[in-house]
Amino acid sequence: MKVILWPAASLFLWLFASICFASVPGDDQDPAALRVNALRLKERIDKLAGFGGTVDGGVHRVAFSKEDILSRGYLMDLMKEAGLEVRIDEAGNIIGRREGKESDLPVIMAGSHSDTVPHGGRFDGSAGVLSAIEAAQVLHENSITTNHPLEIVIFTDEEGGLVGSRAMTGTLTPEALGESTHSGKIVREGVRLLGGNPEAISRAARPEGSLCAFVELHIEQGASLDSRGIDIGVVEGIVGINWWDVYIDGFANHAGTTPMDARKDALLSAAHLIIAVNRIALETPGRQVGTVGRIEAFPGAPNVIPDSVIMSLELRDLSAAKIQELFVHIQEEADRIAERFGTPITFDPVDATAVPAPTDPCIRRLIGEAAKDLGLSAQLMPSGAGHDAQDMARIVPTGMIFIPSIGGISHSPKEHSTPAQLANGANVLLHTLLKIDRSGEIQ
Amino acid sequence: MKVILWPAASLFLWLFASICFASVPGDDQDPAALRVNALRLKERIDKLAGFGGTVDGGVHRVAFSKEDILSRGYLMDLMKEAGLEVRIDEAGNIIGRREGKESDLPVIMAGSHSDTVPHGGRFDGSAGVLSAIEAAQVLHENSITTNHPLEIVIFTDEEGGLVGSRAMTGTLTPEALGESTHSGKIVREGVRLLGGNPEAISRAARPEGSLCAFVELHIEQGASLDSRGIDIGVVEGIVGINWWDVYIDGFANHAGTTPMDARKDALLSAAHLIIAVNRIALETPGRQVGTVGRIEAFPGAPNVIPDSVIMSLELRDLSAAKIQELFVHIQEEADRIAERFGTPITFDPVDATAVPAPTDPCIRRLIGEAAKDLGLSAQLMPSGAGHDAQDMARIVPTGMIFIPSIGGISHSPKEHSTPAQLANGANVLLHTLLKIDRSGEIQ
Repeated sequence: MKVILWPAASLFLWLFASICFASVPGDDQDPAALRVNALRLKERIDKLAGFGGTVDGGVHRVAFSKEDILSRGYLMDLMKEAGLEVRIDEAGNIIGRREGKESDLPVIMAGSHSDTVPHGGRFDGSAGVLSAIEAAQVLHENSITTNHPLEIVIFTDEEGGLVGSRAMTGTLTPEALGESTHSGKIVREGVRLLGGNPEAISRAARPEGSLCAFVELHIEQGASLDSRGIDIGVVEGIVGINWWDVYIDGFANHAGTTPMDARKDALLSAAHLIIAVNRIALETPGRQVGTVGRIEAFPGAPNVIPDSVIMSLELRDLSAAKIQELFVHIQEEADRIAERFGTPITFDPVDATAVPAPTDPCIRRLIGEAAKDLGLSAQLMPSGAGHDAQDMARIVPTGMIFIPSIGGISHSPKEHSTPAQLANGANVLLHTLLKIDRSGEIQ
Repeated sequence: MKVILWPAASLFLWLFASICFASVPGDDQDPAALRVNALRLKERIDKLAGFGGTVDGGVHRVAFSKEDILSRGYLMDLMKEAGLEVRIDEAGNIIGRREGKESDLPVIMAGSHSDTVPHGGRFDGSAGVLSAIEAAQVLHENSITTNHPLEIVIFTDEEGGLVGSRAMTGTLTPEALGESTHSGKIVREGVRLLGGNPEAISRAARPEGSLCAFVELHIEQGASLDSRGIDIGVVEGIVGINWWDVYIDGFANHAGTTPMDARKDALLSAAHLIIAVNRIALETPGRQVGTVGRIEAFPGAPNVIPDSVIMSLELRDLSAAKIQELFVHIQEEADRIAERFGTPITFDPVDATAVPAPTDPCIRRLIGEAAKDLGLSAQLMPSGAGHDAQDMARIVPTGMIFIPSIGGISHSPKEHSTPAQLANGANVLLHTLLKIDRSGEIQ
């Protein structure tokens, strides 16, 4: 309750201060003085959460569901209110465009996704979408025309496999269109329901050179910012992810008649390996993570020594070389465990890997400057979770802005960021876009 | 193949020697010179294995199946050939009786079970049943009348829950009669099919004082005898078994965004506990065993830190106090792990326990003497597996004779004991019964 009450109490004070002391824009407005409308942003977060809202304050708005489709109507209305020209691309991505002074310049793009995981929260994705629309609306209301065209994007089905951003980067496979989703529809049907055209989905891919930059604001989904009281995370990159299925072979035997010193217990070896994975991930310098989340022991009876174990291994880091280095250490440790207990251990790579996606150093610097200009604290950090930005980074210089997640909780109805944190992030996004527009460094 | 070929090669030499040099019994036969017919015993093992025999040399003869019923007809014929008067009690137990010189004396009983686990072997149970019939037949052929009446018993459905021996000891619960079995029939139906009378099953219980002794021969089902080249195991008792469900509570979190030092990983704690169970069972002086055979981690996804684990814990020892002592050590270790990782651990006892069943010291001594008289090596040992003898020990002084299991394998088509090992065991059984009959010490 502490987590919930504190923002509620502070909200009113903060909103009061925002409304009283916010600078009022005018024609001769110094762009550096522009601020987002914190109250409007907060209200829109709550309104959007009504589409698929659950009684516990969470949101169940999986891609292609009725709630997803209805919420997109609301979001397109907001885009139009922000002066954006709205279209839906072949992948069902919603794109709101604002022309720049020079229409030949490549597009500066900002956005995120509006779908949620099943029984998720109201900030994951939505914070980025509404902050980007808010930034566009502030420019619109202040009659500021950027040099570059500006596009706000709402990506299709991020949680189900980055469908929209993969289509935009030309990396969505035909197989992905046939996959089933939490909505009960396969992706192809879902894209069509959103107004896309799955048969011509390749046309959603942006031509080389057509984009200047992509910036995504997102909640951190971890506790690094919240626990240190930092306002803004400047994402260094989205970590690479490698998965393996680990097979451990022992010998099934009667638990009553097989002495302790005559066993080949696959689960005992698995236990040693789980601890080794944790120790290597913990003690190696760096911010890598290593996780065993799934385990099965066979035959799985209380009175039979397990003859085999299958378990998962996941490693994440910003550097593919570092992941490989960690994996080599884990394999060496597995070899020692296998030798000690007479239980061979094999690792089978799973085709669910993501290569690390570093963000653009120049955009990182501009995000940091924007935060500094706004008097906000910021820190460089990796993104341990996957995002649309990791796909976009393949084709365009990309930046990512994190705002704190209270308690590090996400993918949960308890997911929370305060209105102040949201507004801080949206202001950093707005000024990062302006800095990119003025900068000659990107491209 | 080595295991299979060696007995095959040695069998012929050994049988040849047995047939040529076996003493031929006569009316004035010294009982100490009696020997079982090794060839007949071996042939009957093979014949019995034909009932439910599988192509891989194993036996699938679960209680109450057609194969079980047909095999019982064969076994009753063998009993009659051995001069026994055959009846079926209310629990479906087959009892072959041979009167003694003094019909008022309590009965000396020997036997085992003839049902198998699904896809089991040809020795578990069958070795004890056929050895007991063989012992009776040798007495019959040599016209030796014991002082006590002798009964050979074939217990109903041992593998499914010691049904026959529990009925004979008056401990079979009404619930047990309603349980389903591998045959597809519930126990009540099965008992009726065998010729029993489930409605009057309490009449299968033997009155106090009606039995003098019970002796069961069985394969070891472990590798202690085989690995040390010992002929006979003198069972000190059947171990007690305690089961617990162990619950470990962590905190589910995103594996990508939660740093290694901010996790409450229930599976990591489980790994430490699995190793602690193994270490405590291994390092505590004694022959206890401790096993974790079943584990589930939730939510069970490669990219989510497990928030809970349920796993089994089984402890076995000849002493209930020792089991309790081990459990206290494991709980203390669990408390340390829970404290260290912030993951509470609780133990929930499962109602599947068996109290330790010590054998009778006097019968143990007589088994040892019988082995010594026969020039066989013997060692005292616990039985880690459950047997009908553990129930019988509740109501009558009980002994158990183990013969080696090649490679310690059981409950498998690869289960094997050589004809020589079988004959050695049967000879020890025969002479143990004779020694009990002559001894004034039992009762």
